[in-house]
Amino acid sequence: MSERSTRADYAAFQHITTRWRDNDVYRHVNNVVYYSFFDTAVNRMLIKAGVLDIENSPAIGLVVETQCRYFAPLTFPDDVYAGVRVARIGRSSVRYEIGLFRNDDQDACAEGHFVHVYVDRVTTRPVPIPDDTRSFPESLLRPGSNAL
Amino acid sequence: MSERSTRADYAAFQHITTRWRDNDVYRHVNNVVYYSFFDTAVNRMLIKAGVLDIENSPAIGLVVETQCRYFAPLTFPDDVYAGVRVARIGRSSVRYEIGLFRNDDQDACAEGHFVHVYVDRVTTRPVPIPDDTRSFPESLLRPGSNAL
Amino acid sequence: MSERSTRADYAAFQHITTRWRDNDVYRHVNNVVYYSFFDTAVNRMLIKAGVLDIENSPAIGLVVETQCRYFAPLTFPDDVYAGVRVARIGRSSVRYEIGLFRNDDQDACAEGHFVHVYVDRVTTRPVPIPDDTRSFPESLLRPGSNAL
Amino acid sequence: MSERSTRADYAAFQHITTRWRDNDVYRHVNNVVYYSFFDTAVNRMLIKAGVLDIENSPAIGLVVETQCRYFAPLTFPDDVYAGVRVARIGRSSVRYEIGLFRNDDQDACAEGHFVHVYVDRVTTRPVPIPDDTRSFPESLLRPGSNAL
Repeated sequence: MSERSTRADYAAFQHITTRWRDNDVYRHVNNVVYYSFFDTAVNRMLIKAGVLDIENSPAIGLVVETQCRYFAPLTFPDDVYAGVRVARIGRSSVRYEIGLFRNDDQDACAEGHFVHVYVDRVTTRPVPIPDDTRSFPESLLRPGSNAL
Repeated sequence: MSERSTRADYAAFQHITTRWRDNDVYRHVNNVVYYSFFDTAVNRMLIKAGVLDIENSPAIGLVVETQCRYFAPLTFPDDVYAGVRVARIGRSSVRYEIGLFRNDDQDACAEGHFVHVYVDRVTTRPVPIPDDTRSFPESLLRPGSNAL
Repeated sequence: MSERSTRADYAAFQHITTRWRDNDVYRHVNNVVYYSFFDTAVNRMLIKAGVLDIENSPAIGLVVETQCRYFAPLTFPDDVYAGVRVARIGRSSVRYEIGLFRNDDQDACAEGHFVHVYVDRVTTRPVPIPDDTRSFPESLLRPGSNAL
Repeated sequence: MSERSTRADYAAFQHITTRWRDNDVYRHVNNVVYYSFFDTAVNRMLIKAGVLDIENSPAIGLVVETQCRYFAPLTFPDDVYAGVRVARIGRSSVRYEIGLFRNDDQDACAEGHFVHVYVDRVTTRPVPIPDDTRSFPESLLRPGSNAL
């Protein structure tokens, strides 16, 4: 992720609408909110793919690391398109990379990643990614990525 | 607003996407977030109509009162459609009424209002609604409403 | 609540710190955030009093109505002191009234209420306020309030 | 930052109260919120030190990169103590490192950083850190850090 990506670098996209309150005193979307876009894009995809049931899934993905680099501002009422790809799938963990695109822009205005570790919902101990879940992040692997 | 409204009771609609973080520990969109939907719907309309320039408008609308009644839950990743109408336009103030609709539902899952008072951006003293702004809330007046 | 209250009008107080992101483009705490202060003050008191266990309480309080009137701005990094009192206790519901005080101010900068209806956690049907919970809102009744 | 820090690793602390809405569906503070704690701790210190005036400072710090690693959960109504230190000061940029501590815990529950680049408020072009501002991050340099 050493250079700014374009839409072509991502496997799937999610549309997110900005909110009045996303803008901070400097009149652009606050840096914190970008992580809410990351969370929203990935979890919405997991839910729509049927591999996350918030109430009942015995294994859930906890976030253990996140990062974001900011290239250009977003401003309410912009539309955001979150591009998602998977960089690495381990025994218990998935590394998602996300690029945020403003309206029709082709270059990402921000890029980052977050790492999900699957844990038992009750004990919060790491567990293998459930078999029926694994195919979802696999479908988002970008060329050159490694699934262990 | 003594009964639950339907989409037919609103003059214009804004689409808003829910976010992972909108859900609270009870796994539905938290009551606070509904007000963010209100703010977002009205201000997005004002900006798109060209009557609010966040950086430069000499008169801005400050919120002096808000209210919401909650009928049925919203849950991420639901889509929200915010219906907006204007109930009253005074010399300096506008009362917006908002109904929130979940996905394809015809009955509002929540309804509320907020009152904008136009103030001078620098002094924060009330000022008359600017002439070029007034036509916007007028366009959202519902039948039977009173514009002073 | 037709006039602006003072600290003397409230039964108990909770300290809340403001956040950078609370300020919106107009450089004051956004109207939405006040409701987060309401939620925080009441639920923190319920948890600390031992009458709300987020994970396990069989009956939980759902918010069915909220309102706020705004008198004077709050601005990050202000400290907020939320005064809480109970105006009415019904069979299943409690009406909390909250006044927000800025730093050392004696007059409320905002006042509002929210109504909790106790429901069965699983069915979400209204249930009587649990006996061991009821004493908590009773302790916050202001003079002249009615507990049914 | 390859190991979990303790309070002794930080130069100054800021107290932050958690909010009801910080907890997400998994009943712990959502990963996004940690960045709001970072923003709040650093900006509050800048304002209280008199080196940031939100309305008037001609040079402002824009966030160009943030990161967080999560070790243990925070849960409303926990208190958070944000430890802050400065790892590097460049011509225009400051790298802040933040450790979050839960209640009386001595080990950080999360650690991260964010990088401020000072820009001209109007042009948003990078500018040297103003002379009267520079002494503030310098006061937070940890032993072994490099100020260019």
